[in-house]
Amino acid sequence: MATKSLTLVMIFFFLLLLLDCSTARKLKALRHQRPCKRLVFYFHDILYNGHNAKNSTSAIVGAPTWGNTTILASNNHFGNVVIFDDPITLDNNLHSPRVGRAQGFYIYDKKETFTSWIAMSFVFNSTEHKGTINFVGADPILTKTRDLSVVGGTGDFQMSRGVVTLSTDAYEGEVYFRLRCDIKLYECW
Amino acid sequence: MATKSLTLVMIFFFLLLLLDCSTARKLKALRHQRPCKRLVFYFHDILYNGHNAKNSTSAIVGAPTWGNTTILASNNHFGNVVIFDDPITLDNNLHSPRVGRAQGFYIYDKKETFTSWIAMSFVFNSTEHKGTINFVGADPILTKTRDLSVVGGTGDFQMSRGVVTLSTDAYEGEVYFRLRCDIKLYECW
Amino acid sequence: MATKSLTLVMIFFFLLLLLDCSTARKLKALRHQRPCKRLVFYFHDILYNGHNAKNSTSAIVGAPTWGNTTILASNNHFGNVVIFDDPITLDNNLHSPRVGRAQGFYIYDKKETFTSWIAMSFVFNSTEHKGTINFVGADPILTKTRDLSVVGGTGDFQMSRGVVTLSTDAYEGEVYFRLRCDIKLYECW
Repeated sequence: MATKSLTLVMIFFFLLLLLDCSTARKLKALRHQRPCKRLVFYFHDILYNGHNAKNSTSAIVGAPTWGNTTILASNNHFGNVVIFDDPITLDNNLHSPRVGRAQGFYIYDKKETFTSWIAMSFVFNSTEHKGTINFVGADPILTKTRDLSVVGGTGDFQMSRGVVTLSTDAYEGEVYFRLRCDIKLYECW
Repeated sequence: MATKSLTLVMIFFFLLLLLDCSTARKLKALRHQRPCKRLVFYFHDILYNGHNAKNSTSAIVGAPTWGNTTILASNNHFGNVVIFDDPITLDNNLHSPRVGRAQGFYIYDKKETFTSWIAMSFVFNSTEHKGTINFVGADPILTKTRDLSVVGGTGDFQMSRGVVTLSTDAYEGEVYFRLRCDIKLYECW
Repeated sequence: MATKSLTLVMIFFFLLLLLDCSTARKLKALRHQRPCKRLVFYFHDILYNGHNAKNSTSAIVGAPTWGNTTILASNNHFGNVVIFDDPITLDNNLHSPRVGRAQGFYIYDKKETFTSWIAMSFVFNSTEHKGTINFVGADPILTKTRDLSVVGGTGDFQMSRGVVTLSTDAYEGEVYFRLRCDIKLYECW
């Protein structure tokens, strides 16, 4: 009788182990497929060019020796540093309600083609969202979609990590561009 | 008899599952409330203004086209880039023993108000702490407290993540400011 | 009989708990010792100095008021900002096949000695690796080895975290340096 119950216990023990392992595997697989939070925003960058002091949301603040801080440099703007404080909207209309600000900087970092590198925060302070999401990463502008890292967050986005997929939704010469940001958080609190 | 022990085993099995779930929930709740490590530091920034070469710990290195690198720009310093190597102390006294250095840069990124964005490392090399803590995030200076992300660490702080709450402890015109940094690590090794 | 099987169940229950705890401890210890992925690369930086427009891969784009963007500043280059797009190779030969690009910027951030701070991405687009690894951290150049944080990744390196150990493999005056990068990822997907 004791042997019987011993066997039973052992069967359950192994079932439990199996369950444990398969759950872990399933959870891991799930984590790979599905973000715990997903958000889509647009942000709008209007570069100061000497004539748009009122409307502009960004400015050149660094340039290589062959450039200046009023006009983007030759060689695919290589060496330019731009600081921005751009409005964030829920759709692709510049005049839609601002739901936050994209603040930070980008640099143009390649002579042979248009490529940039961005470090920025999305800053929210509305009834919908309070807090920040912090991003860094390479932004090869001419690629249809490109992935940057969500390296952290605060407030509603405390301790977030994930990936943001950027795509250029529109641009007008060297003055305006609009990026679509598909934020996928894989670590949430 | 076998049925009885089967029942017993099943009861324990479910108790175990319950225990497992509630523990996970408790651990998660705990993680939200309590950092695994908490550290408070102050750091002191003395901006070079053309007259304090000896004492200054930071310098303007980027400016918009309407500014220069000696005096902070108009429009709430929008467009200024400042590189710093600031002493870290345990209390709010500039002359207290230095326990490390805060190294990195900040930018002023808004025309309408004072707001900055910081990327920096706290570098420690003492008997107390060896290693670095890396930060990035938006710093809306005029807000009483503001949260930035701890995005990583090395040495004693290997693989750390968390949040740092900054508050302006003091400032003197445009030359000196002192920040209180309440570092809360929620991921430790 | 029921008591006997009850005892048995309880023994297994406690064994299970012990197993659970020791496994967790072992896993944690393992995680500390062994990266889930390890990669070694070299990258090569050739700074524009006014005479090497063709070969250079980086340029000074920010300088303190006592410097300029053609020659690195006095005071251990304090205040210089350099943007780079450097080739990555598998060995220490500048002419080896490029396996990716190191893109980002570094700043010199101390008056008294050579110390820098780096934010960059390794960008891969080959059959071997597709995706990016994102780094930030202090780089005290004169130290034999120094650790920076891997704060995120995309593509093949999605959601990566870890530490990179940099060492200066070679340098030629103020024009060329080559860094060995020993990347240790402790979080992989």
